[in-house]
Amino acid sequence: MAKEAKKYFKVDPWKIIEEGFDPKEGRVGESIFSMGNEYMGIRGIFDEMYSGDKLVGCYFNGVYEEKPLSYPEYFNGLAKRCCFMINAQNWLYTRIFVDGVEIDLAKVPFTNFYRELDMKTGLVLRRFTYKDITFTFERFTSINYHYIGGQKITMQSETAHDVKLISGIDFTPIHEEEGKNYWTECDKGDDYIVCATQTSGQRIYSKMKTSFGAGKVISEDKMIMQEYDFSLQGEKVFEKVVYNFVERDKNLSIDLKMADSYLAKSYDDYRAEHVARWAEIWKHSDVEIDGDDENQQGIRFCIFNMHQTYHGDDGRLNVGAKGLTGEKYSGWTFWDSETYCLPFYMFNNPKAAKNLLMYRYNTLPQAKERAIEQDCKGSCYPMVTIDGTESCGVWQHGNLEIHVTAAIAYGVWHYVRNTGDEEFLKNYGLELLVETSRYFASRGDWSPKTGEFGLWGVMGPDEFHMMVHNNTYTNFMVKKNFLYTIEMVKKYGYDVPEEELAQWQNMADKMRINYDEKTKLFEQHDGYFDFPEYDVKGMDPDKVPVYKYWAYDRIFRVNMLKQPDVVLMQFFYSKDFTLEQKRENFYFYEHRCSHESSLSPAIHSIMAAEIGDLDMAEEYMAYGSRVDIDDYNRNAHQGLHVTSMSAAWMNMIYGFGGMRSDGDILSFKPNIPKKWNRYAFTILVRGSVLKVEVVKNKATFKVLEGAPVTVEIYDKTYEITTEGIEIEY
Amino acid sequence: MAKEAKKYFKVDPWKIIEEGFDPKEGRVGESIFSMGNEYMGIRGIFDEMYSGDKLVGCYFNGVYEEKPLSYPEYFNGLAKRCCFMINAQNWLYTRIFVDGVEIDLAKVPFTNFYRELDMKTGLVLRRFTYKDITFTFERFTSINYHYIGGQKITMQSETAHDVKLISGIDFTPIHEEEGKNYWTECDKGDDYIVCATQTSGQRIYSKMKTSFGAGKVISEDKMIMQEYDFSLQGEKVFEKVVYNFVERDKNLSIDLKMADSYLAKSYDDYRAEHVARWAEIWKHSDVEIDGDDENQQGIRFCIFNMHQTYHGDDGRLNVGAKGLTGEKYSGWTFWDSETYCLPFYMFNNPKAAKNLLMYRYNTLPQAKERAIEQDCKGSCYPMVTIDGTESCGVWQHGNLEIHVTAAIAYGVWHYVRNTGDEEFLKNYGLELLVETSRYFASRGDWSPKTGEFGLWGVMGPDEFHMMVHNNTYTNFMVKKNFLYTIEMVKKYGYDVPEEELAQWQNMADKMRINYDEKTKLFEQHDGYFDFPEYDVKGMDPDKVPVYKYWAYDRIFRVNMLKQPDVVLMQFFYSKDFTLEQKRENFYFYEHRCSHESSLSPAIHSIMAAEIGDLDMAEEYMAYGSRVDIDDYNRNAHQGLHVTSMSAAWMNMIYGFGGMRSDGDILSFKPNIPKKWNRYAFTILVRGSVLKVEVVKNKATFKVLEGAPVTVEIYDKTYEITTEGIEIEY
Repeated sequence: MAKEAKKYFKVDPWKIIEEGFDPKEGRVGESIFSMGNEYMGIRGIFDEMYSGDKLVGCYFNGVYEEKPLSYPEYFNGLAKRCCFMINAQNWLYTRIFVDGVEIDLAKVPFTNFYRELDMKTGLVLRRFTYKDITFTFERFTSINYHYIGGQKITMQSETAHDVKLISGIDFTPIHEEEGKNYWTECDKGDDYIVCATQTSGQRIYSKMKTSFGAGKVISEDKMIMQEYDFSLQGEKVFEKVVYNFVERDKNLSIDLKMADSYLAKSYDDYRAEHVARWAEIWKHSDVEIDGDDENQQGIRFCIFNMHQTYHGDDGRLNVGAKGLTGEKYSGWTFWDSETYCLPFYMFNNPKAAKNLLMYRYNTLPQAKERAIEQDCKGSCYPMVTIDGTESCGVWQHGNLEIHVTAAIAYGVWHYVRNTGDEEFLKNYGLELLVETSRYFASRGDWSPKTGEFGLWGVMGPDEFHMMVHNNTYTNFMVKKNFLYTIEMVKKYGYDVPEEELAQWQNMADKMRINYDEKTKLFEQHDGYFDFPEYDVKGMDPDKVPVYKYWAYDRIFRVNMLKQPDVVLMQFFYSKDFTLEQKRENFYFYEHRCSHESSLSPAIHSIMAAEIGDLDMAEEYMAYGSRVDIDDYNRNAHQGLHVTSMSAAWMNMIYGFGGMRSDGDILSFKPNIPKKWNRYAFTILVRGSVLKVEVVKNKATFKVLEGAPVTVEIYDKTYEITTEGIEIEY
Repeated sequence: MAKEAKKYFKVDPWKIIEEGFDPKEGRVGESIFSMGNEYMGIRGIFDEMYSGDKLVGCYFNGVYEEKPLSYPEYFNGLAKRCCFMINAQNWLYTRIFVDGVEIDLAKVPFTNFYRELDMKTGLVLRRFTYKDITFTFERFTSINYHYIGGQKITMQSETAHDVKLISGIDFTPIHEEEGKNYWTECDKGDDYIVCATQTSGQRIYSKMKTSFGAGKVISEDKMIMQEYDFSLQGEKVFEKVVYNFVERDKNLSIDLKMADSYLAKSYDDYRAEHVARWAEIWKHSDVEIDGDDENQQGIRFCIFNMHQTYHGDDGRLNVGAKGLTGEKYSGWTFWDSETYCLPFYMFNNPKAAKNLLMYRYNTLPQAKERAIEQDCKGSCYPMVTIDGTESCGVWQHGNLEIHVTAAIAYGVWHYVRNTGDEEFLKNYGLELLVETSRYFASRGDWSPKTGEFGLWGVMGPDEFHMMVHNNTYTNFMVKKNFLYTIEMVKKYGYDVPEEELAQWQNMADKMRINYDEKTKLFEQHDGYFDFPEYDVKGMDPDKVPVYKYWAYDRIFRVNMLKQPDVVLMQFFYSKDFTLEQKRENFYFYEHRCSHESSLSPAIHSIMAAEIGDLDMAEEYMAYGSRVDIDDYNRNAHQGLHVTSMSAAWMNMIYGFGGMRSDGDILSFKPNIPKKWNRYAFTILVRGSVLKVEVVKNKATFKVLEGAPVTVEIYDKTYEITTEGIEIEY
């Protein structure tokens, strides 16, 4: 936990501010100032030429290429191909020449560099002065209209200068890790261009409209540009609106006219709607912290990026581990979507929560195919994916982390329980439940020794133990999978033979859950307590991460955890465990956990709060909300830790707010860190906006909009109305 | 076990005979008629042109190339490069034209095709008739002079023909799997050529001398040839002797004159010495079987090939899994060398046995390096290797099968015990023992639950279970490793700190060996008895091997074995277990074993014989000696199962002969399969030739040459002299 903050950006409750430009932090700035709207994302690259170190990263959710996976030796059921999000067009492409000199901050002298992300309005603004000209750039990716991106360049000069401005759309950026550009030009005009990916056959149609009208057309392969030459004295404003449309189906033609109706609206129109929409979002999504500006800024940055990354417009899209802010992790969706992201969206944008699950429903055919490849029945969900197929080339993860499939059923249960969306359950959820249960029934087996049902040969979320048997987290999740499926099939009806239901019931009843009544400890997997001990707390902080410093297989033969499976299980199904069980298991496993998963500290903070160890809760939340702003892991240059941001949000709401969402109604046990004076958060609960405000020893609950909400607070049930109530604690 | 014989070759006690030529069996014939002498090997390719399906395979022990290993994701300690034996020069290269038509058995009509390997003399002879010309080819790789190969072509014709004969040395054969030729020409003359490998920098100098004298020189890249044109009527004999010299060190120049002294001798001289040497070998290596011609032929084929593959001229060489008969398994040395091959050589050619261990001594630096890569101390031996480094790209084998290192110490113990070679022990063996003990002390760990020492995260010889903990075979072998090391260090002295010895003693004393006194069962590894059951005996014989038909990870989560670790341990250290223990464990594990390792049936046959189940012993030895002659596994075209041949020999001597070599003196408990009338075998015991002859109910032991030998027969001690003794049993 000995990580150090870099204090490059300024602290401000609503803004991320960069004053002066350090080229060494160039890529970190690109990540931090990323803009996105689920559909597309663009890193905080400079609009104009920049010849310094950079990653011109422009991404479209679900736009990918693939490569074959090759192994020293291939075995049945190993993934054969890997899909990865590719780098698409830079639609902000701009080149500026002043009196014949190209503006390039790596080459020309400049002053007064300033950049800010205003999270309240969703706008990024950048300013600098070259000679006596001040350039100001503003941009946004429309949160209302996902095809639309806007750019505004304001130039102000006291004296006269000859300026040449080139504005265009550039499909030439390369995918850095693969060292390749994946685009082929299909069609172009003076102000539009259509390019296609090489093997996946996806196309993007990109068209621009500028406030300067038609310029001199310059055409290069995979690029269109328009040039404007003018004399600058006083102020000149250039505005550009770009329409970016992805056609995934190779067999469809692209409607080129659609763009024109979109481009009829001005930059200012789109900007105004965008800013208004962000104001709406904050009304039911804000978290306020008094007395800790850093966490205030951090938590808002997390919330802002969760909304930027996904808002549920398209059930074929999902959340990549780095969102749309970098190519690391290839745009892949992990089980994080159902376990960490879903709660955020459930209480902030239920439509997005539903669409995360619809993504799994829409990829059922791939999951069925994958189960067959594994000699199993039902549906097996991939470890990492873009198109629904498995992209993980490391079989010990891709083939053994079957808990991913249980997370889908958990997501259905969690979503339906908290939204009451019966229609979803009947039309889609039931099939997901039946398919996942069928998978586990075929994947599991029986102990000849004890007659218990279990899952042999797995890897739990704790990836520091592989090929383990009866991982308690997995077994418990699968048991819940069976039971919920049976309950829902009986309640809503679904075509499953009686014997199959009986079989699942038997498997659930006889599921092995290693538990010692005397110590209250759940054994993480068969034989875990017998594993040689490793002194995690005594580790040399210069010798982490272990993947980098340890011989690979050594990782798997000590009791050190990457993240705590048992503690996670006790959080997900909070009501199933006593406080004593939680306390004993927390202290036992916390001592053995290395937190090399960035999701681990938040879970520890939440559970420490529950068992009343507030000091530890505060310690564990130390950098959760600021992992990227302060670049704790020194890898923010690769992109933002988007799914960890959701964990940071959970840390607030479930940790200090003490919320639990696994009961019949929401429950809360708020508390407050010592150094805070007050905090407050608003969430959406079945259409109502619930505000919770906490100061020392007192919490206020109030419905801001919508019907009353029934919740449990410190184990007592209350109906919360617009009147609000105060609880002393 | 339901494998079917192909009966292509004729049965004969001393010969392998092919009458008529079936091109579909072309590659199988190439494997069966392979010639070799440890140093070099050549498949039974046709001397002359053959345009049909073939693998022109010519190998030199230890001559290899390397390629980088690439993974979807690399982790510390995984092997980075893979060495593989390459295909070298065809020194039998011959082209024959008769009246302008090239002799090519795929194109010209021919009759009377006959081929034989005479195992008594070590000669391969092939004959066919084209028109009225009969061609007879004879060849050998000198068993006395390992640089020398001989070829004799006899042509006999009634009428006159114009014949053109081209004879040469051809470095153009490709490595089939890699689809590449790895040679670069360095130097050549009229009758010699020097070529070098591309990255390993090894060179081969190959020079020929023919009985026809100097012919017309033809030179092509990587080839030299001499052409002879003559008229043939009556008989004409062409003889060719080739000198092949490998220079492994790039910095040394090659002594081109050395060849001349070798080539001064004639084909007949070399042939005579070769035949005489084979007669010598058979004197102390033969196994006779009366009443079973097939096994008689089979066991001699095994013995013949063990001698062909290795005889201990060079401690930098070892035995590849397919010897020098094909490119499959890349010429790699496995743990088979110490566990299966060593006993054969110990009792047939002790110098070869010693040099197998010297190979390990000579590769200690690589093994030390490998231990460091694994975060360990001491020396860690590779899973598969040519040059002493790890070539296994499948980490679950290459990194987890640490029993390979224990097999080295076992080999030292077994060799010294049976040969009394104290000099070897003092000069080399002790270092091997100390290094391997040091490795295991650092690789092992302590159970916090029981305080036992053990080895977590391993794969035993049973490769159907991976990342297991405390594999009983491995733990037991390591315990023996420690104890023998301590004993020898104390006896002969070696610079090991007292505390380290005490530590090893403690580890040995506290070694976990999972054993249930009630059932007498050793549990193969922690939790094995809890593994879901799989009905191995009921397997669909069309759905094997499992690697081909099963999803990979499914293999690892049932109780099916590939080969039986516990039974193997009870064979290796026979004296450490009671007959009852052996019986109980044999029946328990036999039932669960799939025998997908070709080494498994022989061990089962041996142990079945020991526990008195002769029916099962006979069943398990069914095809051991004829696995290649009858092509039971349908892969003899790839080369011979050389290490399995040693297992077949053990099956005879340790199985029916009932020999055990783990006590202070050799012991025997002979028995005889029902269908045999008599069998006999001779072995070398500390310089004496011991002959054992067994008929129903009676065994005769006699020393043929050398000092008396003390052995135990049916638990009683006897001194065997040249008089011999008869034992009723």
